[in-house]
Amino acid sequence: MFACTGYAATAPETPLAPFDFQRRDVGPRDVRIDIAYCGVCHSDLHQARNEWANTLYPCLPGHEIVGAVVEVGAEVTRFKVGDLAGVGCMVDSCRECSSCKEGLEQYCETGFVGTYNGVEAQTGQNTFGGYSEAIVCDESFVLKLPEGVDLAATAPLLCAGITTYSPLKRWGAGPGKKVGVVGLGGLGHMALQIAHAMGAHVALFTTSAGKVEDAKRLGADEVIISKDAEQMAAHAESFDFILDTVAADHDVNAYLGLLKRDATLCQVGAPEKPLSVAAFSVIWRRRNFSGSLIGGIAETQEMLDFCARHGIVSEIEKIDIQDIETAYERMLRSDVKYRFVIDMASLKPAA
Amino acid sequence: MFACTGYAATAPETPLAPFDFQRRDVGPRDVRIDIAYCGVCHSDLHQARNEWANTLYPCLPGHEIVGAVVEVGAEVTRFKVGDLAGVGCMVDSCRECSSCKEGLEQYCETGFVGTYNGVEAQTGQNTFGGYSEAIVCDESFVLKLPEGVDLAATAPLLCAGITTYSPLKRWGAGPGKKVGVVGLGGLGHMALQIAHAMGAHVALFTTSAGKVEDAKRLGADEVIISKDAEQMAAHAESFDFILDTVAADHDVNAYLGLLKRDATLCQVGAPEKPLSVAAFSVIWRRRNFSGSLIGGIAETQEMLDFCARHGIVSEIEKIDIQDIETAYERMLRSDVKYRFVIDMASLKPAA
Repeated sequence: MFACTGYAATAPETPLAPFDFQRRDVGPRDVRIDIAYCGVCHSDLHQARNEWANTLYPCLPGHEIVGAVVEVGAEVTRFKVGDLAGVGCMVDSCRECSSCKEGLEQYCETGFVGTYNGVEAQTGQNTFGGYSEAIVCDESFVLKLPEGVDLAATAPLLCAGITTYSPLKRWGAGPGKKVGVVGLGGLGHMALQIAHAMGAHVALFTTSAGKVEDAKRLGADEVIISKDAEQMAAHAESFDFILDTVAADHDVNAYLGLLKRDATLCQVGAPEKPLSVAAFSVIWRRRNFSGSLIGGIAETQEMLDFCARHGIVSEIEKIDIQDIETAYERMLRSDVKYRFVIDMASLKPAA
Repeated sequence: MFACTGYAATAPETPLAPFDFQRRDVGPRDVRIDIAYCGVCHSDLHQARNEWANTLYPCLPGHEIVGAVVEVGAEVTRFKVGDLAGVGCMVDSCRECSSCKEGLEQYCETGFVGTYNGVEAQTGQNTFGGYSEAIVCDESFVLKLPEGVDLAATAPLLCAGITTYSPLKRWGAGPGKKVGVVGLGGLGHMALQIAHAMGAHVALFTTSAGKVEDAKRLGADEVIISKDAEQMAAHAESFDFILDTVAADHDVNAYLGLLKRDATLCQVGAPEKPLSVAAFSVIWRRRNFSGSLIGGIAETQEMLDFCARHGIVSEIEKIDIQDIETAYERMLRSDVKYRFVIDMASLKPAA
């Protein structure tokens, strides 16, 4: 074990604060990464504050991790010291169930091991995430970062990027397809860029006319103000796929009605309260209300390579780790364009 | 035009009563059927009482129609006088949109013409359904009834049969698949028989222990009492497909949680109020909450042939048309095993 420092919550109501802990030493198949940046995901806040009622304290969040490899185990084949590498939402899974064998570790039948709030098989202790100076991870769950990428702006791809890439690919976003994205936040701003790069005709749904310019810059071919019944009606039964990134309560029936026959609305935002779905919204044109959870490791690598090829990164605001609680408050007010990323240099004592 | 008699509602609050009207004469591609039996669908009651707020009065319901061909138009090729024939929920559609061209007339982009409560292109008058002595229909929307079938017990296949057959087929019910059916009523009792004949392992979900025996007789391999949390938990993540026939409010999340990754719960019952679907119910294993509406004409013929081959009919209680309001009241109490069928001989004056 080696000493490591980071920021963690010790109870639902306490702010994140400096936290000293131990990480396991590098085993034969492990990679140790010095963390340069870690993106701030809405899940981090939910988990730190126990809003899903399943938090293991101390809770050290962060699953959009990038940095440089500083040590590799004897059996590691894919990484060498000095490589740029990333870790996303998962650090392990059973590797034996049908989902794992298909490369869909996120749906591991016994449950994947989360990068934080999981239980580390090697030590039995809580997994601790990316709000820290270093991480040790089995190379099977470490992603290669393409040469020359903007490291900080790439961090959010590990969660926000793959969460949108995976369903866009699964449901066939591409040339000749009309794809809708509901909501322009951390997920939505990735979805616009990725769907556009996949070749689809992309429409953003937003309640806010103030987002039109940003949406178009990020790849939207059109912007539909969802409060405007006339605009909505003009798009009835015309969409091949809609990706819904909204994490607050909203009327999904309004969007289901815009789908063609047999088409899918995929929910990736996770509102606290159940959504109301009218039976006729799905019966009428045999539509699907579906969901999707991040993506598998191989697909995450594919997404990183795709984004590098197309010059896609997250639009970010860098923060010091000392400002994490302020960032959470601003995130709750949607006051961020479009993702906070912690510069982990701020964790180190000034020289 | 020729004079025809039947039973119709003239306003939401008036009971169905004898009604004289005119039907169009047989055109070149039309078939005239003397109606022997007509099944009683829950939709008939909804429509007669304007519960969907879209009823065209006078409203003459009935879309599970069987009888004998008594006249054919000059260009009719598929039927001759004396053939047994059926008419289901549709009597026409645009025939030009992509759904129609794919044989999915039920999803016609301009809307199919309902057997009742539609507008007849040929006359501009309301379409009038099967609670009558005869019907005239374009042969493209007339089904052939296999030789030797029990005519009365076959009538409900035209709606309840195809409504369950189509999604069972689409979502792959068959050998090696575990299929759930929620609810044992008119739709559910057809779904059990059809899924069983398709070769699936079939489980019925019911709140009522009293239905176990019937369910097993109808083809259920097992019966799960949905109020029993332990029984439900034992089936977590094990179903390949679930067909939900319940038309009252209920917790679909309990069933979504029983689906395998990527599997579908298809709603064919249409509760009045929207259903509550938790985002995590679909996100967690990339599940689908979907719907399905009757089936196309070619598929309806395929279903009739399939049922004839497997000896599948509806379990019915025959009634006289004079008792239709009593039947509606009993249907509302689920006091029918499992479908009322009107013997249209009762419409004719006693000799």
